[in-house]
Amino acid sequence: MSSPCITLLTDFGTTDHYVGIMKGVMQTICPGAQLIDLTHAIPPQHIIAAALTLQQAAPYFPAGTVHLVVVDPGVGSQRRPIAIQTPHASLVGPDNGVLFPFWQAARQHWPDDQAVLAVHLTEPRFWLPQISTTFHGRDIFAPVAAHLAYGVPLTELGPLVSDLVPLTIPQPHWQPEDNTLYGQVQSIDHFGNCITNITADHLLPLGDPTNLHITWEHGGQTDSNSTHLATTYAAVAPGDVLALMGSSHLLEIAIRNGNAAQTLGLTIGSQIRIAAKSESRPG
Amino acid sequence: MSSPCITLLTDFGTTDHYVGIMKGVMQTICPGAQLIDLTHAIPPQHIIAAALTLQQAAPYFPAGTVHLVVVDPGVGSQRRPIAIQTPHASLVGPDNGVLFPFWQAARQHWPDDQAVLAVHLTEPRFWLPQISTTFHGRDIFAPVAAHLAYGVPLTELGPLVSDLVPLTIPQPHWQPEDNTLYGQVQSIDHFGNCITNITADHLLPLGDPTNLHITWEHGGQTDSNSTHLATTYAAVAPGDVLALMGSSHLLEIAIRNGNAAQTLGLTIGSQIRIAAKSESRPG
Amino acid sequence: MSSPCITLLTDFGTTDHYVGIMKGVMQTICPGAQLIDLTHAIPPQHIIAAALTLQQAAPYFPAGTVHLVVVDPGVGSQRRPIAIQTPHASLVGPDNGVLFPFWQAARQHWPDDQAVLAVHLTEPRFWLPQISTTFHGRDIFAPVAAHLAYGVPLTELGPLVSDLVPLTIPQPHWQPEDNTLYGQVQSIDHFGNCITNITADHLLPLGDPTNLHITWEHGGQTDSNSTHLATTYAAVAPGDVLALMGSSHLLEIAIRNGNAAQTLGLTIGSQIRIAAKSESRPG
Repeated sequence: MSSPCITLLTDFGTTDHYVGIMKGVMQTICPGAQLIDLTHAIPPQHIIAAALTLQQAAPYFPAGTVHLVVVDPGVGSQRRPIAIQTPHASLVGPDNGVLFPFWQAARQHWPDDQAVLAVHLTEPRFWLPQISTTFHGRDIFAPVAAHLAYGVPLTELGPLVSDLVPLTIPQPHWQPEDNTLYGQVQSIDHFGNCITNITADHLLPLGDPTNLHITWEHGGQTDSNSTHLATTYAAVAPGDVLALMGSSHLLEIAIRNGNAAQTLGLTIGSQIRIAAKSESRPG
Repeated sequence: MSSPCITLLTDFGTTDHYVGIMKGVMQTICPGAQLIDLTHAIPPQHIIAAALTLQQAAPYFPAGTVHLVVVDPGVGSQRRPIAIQTPHASLVGPDNGVLFPFWQAARQHWPDDQAVLAVHLTEPRFWLPQISTTFHGRDIFAPVAAHLAYGVPLTELGPLVSDLVPLTIPQPHWQPEDNTLYGQVQSIDHFGNCITNITADHLLPLGDPTNLHITWEHGGQTDSNSTHLATTYAAVAPGDVLALMGSSHLLEIAIRNGNAAQTLGLTIGSQIRIAAKSESRPG
Repeated sequence: MSSPCITLLTDFGTTDHYVGIMKGVMQTICPGAQLIDLTHAIPPQHIIAAALTLQQAAPYFPAGTVHLVVVDPGVGSQRRPIAIQTPHASLVGPDNGVLFPFWQAARQHWPDDQAVLAVHLTEPRFWLPQISTTFHGRDIFAPVAAHLAYGVPLTELGPLVSDLVPLTIPQPHWQPEDNTLYGQVQSIDHFGNCITNITADHLLPLGDPTNLHITWEHGGQTDSNSTHLATTYAAVAPGDVLALMGSSHLLEIAIRNGNAAQTLGLTIGSQIRIAAKSESRPG
């Protein structure tokens, strides 16, 4: 059998040795595991950003991959450590909402009662011998992820639970009065592309996708900018603004060979409005 | 046998290809080795920071792990390249103090003369064929680490040495006149937590740990801030300052869901004073 | 057989999950592959920087390594996806010049017609089922790299091509009128060392290498700085400027234990002039 994969997704950054230490713990328990960083640059304690990253990345990993998620502002408090198993993957992390959207989507995808299971991690024999109050990533989550990768059945890790702490991710809404879809910027990537929460399905009521008017406020200013939908960055001239359905199937605002977030003053949470282009009206 | 682990700890950053090149060298010599980054963000040529990181991380790795440490301001000079072996791990790096605290602690832990050995790397057959004057990480240290991981006995790498270049790491001191322990901030992590050089043992003379008064200067200002000892970040309200024994068993100054270093003006070297809370005195 | 190596070289940064997703894709297709980051900090869409990094790093990897290069400003346009094979390594990336210098050097090194081959990637059975217009790294290049690492013959991936898009990397030039070699800063590393495009061969016409006068402009200012050639950083006092042949066999301008780029105002493209020291002349 080939080596199991374990991914790591944290807000730890890479300047400290915290991530390296978790990898040492996992190599000790599951020697030869393939340890793959999703990112450690989640903004500190930003549960929604981590949940979105996990949902977008997990489908691209081999069956049986264990996803270790440590974005854990409540470490040391009463929040539960949990693990989840689906027919495709396992997840380990705090019960603070960060695993909730993945769990919810998996339960919709595999509606069989036994297909998607969650447990409360209560069995210390699968943890490090000493448990700190501040670094459960090292002491609980990494050891449990490694034991799962090694083949320990989920149900040995603790009792089944189904009342996970929910997480609400802002959704776009359609406002019939002004025939407009209101969404927002959900994440901004390294290139400055502004990824919204708007999917192709959200755009259906608007009709012809080549005839859309996409607007947003520039920073605090009142003048709005606008663009329309393109299919590739290369469809516009360098320096031009475009909107396109990005690689995660979400509408992005981008500037070809430029940084849209900086140039357009967009930040996470900025509102994006989309309407069908109006017919020309008599003056 | 499963693949051996080699960790990498440098001040090379991750924007260049230096780390990738060292990994290529090691995969060539020891195919399949698990290469794990501790961090490459040691401040340039900061030997003490690297030594502390190594000591804190190494215990979490599997027996037989080789730790490659390249923080090497004297590269190309007469400083010796060395390797160290303990019953648990091997280390490879320059003899400039960076490996000294680990070696010293190992010799105290395994007092048997033959348990902890150090050699001067003098055998070019374990190096790359060409040796540059500026990148011994690639040319000497990475090849030697890979040969050790592959199973080459330490003593083939060069003659035994025991006169390693020492390193002095600032220690807290107890000042009886004012019943105060004086320590300092030793490192600052990605979250802005300020990790001191103060252990639980240092606090023993102060009596009841729940009754301590912890103070420091705010940046250059004369007013001091203070806090007391908590057990978890979640023990205080978001935004509040706390002190706690962190995951490396060192006293930390932190702000729940905040950045203590920035907010409190603390930097590496900032003095931290701890005294038992005084009884209330008649006015 | 040991696990094949795949290196990754992109301008994706490490704050997003793009790199992690490509690794998941590759682990799915070629389980157990050793995935090694060269760097993901190529300046956005800087094809020359990526080409130089690849050429400097590739020689240090095991025979059979696959190098995945995704610096791809033309993603979604008509630029071709290609793969290259030499007797030592394979390369996968866009046909935008980024692989050109490597390919050209390989053809000079192995002049046999069949030794170095390039193909246009046209076979979708080696790609992901769905191809986005914006992330061919995930959808085409990573899958192809993993199939190559797994053992798929190059020629199954598409038809042979030999008209690769060229890339011109600035070269130093010798100006006989003033007996001066004119080069430039080609890259700046994490330490601030300024790596030029000047090799030892370029210096041969200048005679005695210990008798060179190396000058450059300080930022926009008119006064020039100068230094001479040293052999190691440690050959000068801390804080002093030096020039030396660096670990990639290129002339570097550095400051011992300092940041030359910041202190000297050098940037990528800054001109470096080298002349033999003039004899003392009668007044």
